[in-house]
Amino acid sequence: MATAYAYLLNIGTKIIAVGRNYAAHAKELGNAVPKEPVLFMKPTSSYLQNGGTIEIPHPLKSLDHEVELAVVISQRARDVPEASAMDYVGGYALALDMTAREIQASAKSAGLPWTVAKGQDTFTPISSVLPKASIPDPDDLELWLKVDDEFRQKGSTKDMIFKIPYLISHISSLMTLLEGDVILTGTPSGVGPVKAGQKVTAGITNIIDVHFNVENRRKP
Amino acid sequence: MATAYAYLLNIGTKIIAVGRNYAAHAKELGNAVPKEPVLFMKPTSSYLQNGGTIEIPHPLKSLDHEVELAVVISQRARDVPEASAMDYVGGYALALDMTAREIQASAKSAGLPWTVAKGQDTFTPISSVLPKASIPDPDDLELWLKVDDEFRQKGSTKDMIFKIPYLISHISSLMTLLEGDVILTGTPSGVGPVKAGQKVTAGITNIIDVHFNVENRRKP
Ligand SMILES: [Mg+2]
Ligand SMILES: [Mg+2]
Ligand SMILES: [Mg+2]
Repeated sequence: MATAYAYLLNIGTKIIAVGRNYAAHAKELGNAVPKEPVLFMKPTSSYLQNGGTIEIPHPLKSLDHEVELAVVISQRARDVPEASAMDYVGGYALALDMTAREIQASAKSAGLPWTVAKGQDTFTPISSVLPKASIPDPDDLELWLKVDDEFRQKGSTKDMIFKIPYLISHISSLMTLLEGDVILTGTPSGVGPVKAGQKVTAGITNIIDVHFNVENRRKP
Repeated sequence: MATAYAYLLNIGTKIIAVGRNYAAHAKELGNAVPKEPVLFMKPTSSYLQNGGTIEIPHPLKSLDHEVELAVVISQRARDVPEASAMDYVGGYALALDMTAREIQASAKSAGLPWTVAKGQDTFTPISSVLPKASIPDPDDLELWLKVDDEFRQKGSTKDMIFKIPYLISHISSLMTLLEGDVILTGTPSGVGPVKAGQKVTAGITNIIDVHFNVENRRKP
């Protein structure tokens, strides 16, 4: 599916992730709903293709799952107005923003960046790219995530605080977005840990689903 | 100079920057000397070639300069031991890690990422790539920076807390480094603001120098 668009993730140079973009998720982590998007970066080296194995780095015992809609940029975007922002979307994907929550919590309390908590290899499991035409209304998608047989997350992109055109406009006012770059649009509530031996499945209802194994990372 | 290596910065997909890697600089910002490297990401869209104009985003009145030695990676590196880490270096460059200090200070006190403070377009002015063979001892380079005619920073890479082989080994244990990726190794003391109309010159003594104009960004 969507093989014609697969090259986009290969040529992209950045992932800009939005934190706290669903009020219910901000609340579950004890955070205020933000006045402007909370932005952080993940490296493209953290991508993991559908069917792969999420690796928990030593000495952690789990990683938190965050299911998110990924917006894939189709062309160079700088200072794009909201009105034309959707012209810069090449497609979508279903992604997980895997998070080492303990490392993130220490970083937050020390005023330090989230890079180690968010950017390690396999921390961004992602589906193939769905062509834009196959998603007529990205603001009305149901995202879901299961750990083994248990539903953990289910939410609608309707509940995003900052919508896709605003995010593209805002981010492109700060930095040039390039073909293949990805915006992770935030997670609905229900985040929680996954451990070695568990399986994560996630999807966009009626559109796509993905599955990943979870193992402790074996150091060479 | 070094044109054969220019392609490296074009194909790279990430910049991993090290914070507080010189004790004197950690101290001047009131930070403790870290026990492990403080890591954050900058997008490659923030590169600015020698001779370009650093843009101060509205409504800021200045950006802080941080002169740094950039290490350019030559090949895929994952879990590289310190002993062979230098085999993954393709060259070096002189870079500035431009920082919106007020935005960084607010982010730090709110436990938020540094992306907006560090990642905007033109926030990573950088020289051409110096081939590895032209820098026999990267641990003994004098870095300097002037604003107009005033010396602001002068320091030696001898004073880095975490040395290059350690940084490559450590970062590659967290995430795969790829050809053209860059590690910014931290800044010596003397950071401070530059304003519209000023000129920044910086260099590695006897090896290379670069110059940049500074202007307020004009929004389209
Ligand atoms: Mg690339
Ligand atoms: Mg997230
Ligand atoms: Mg710096």
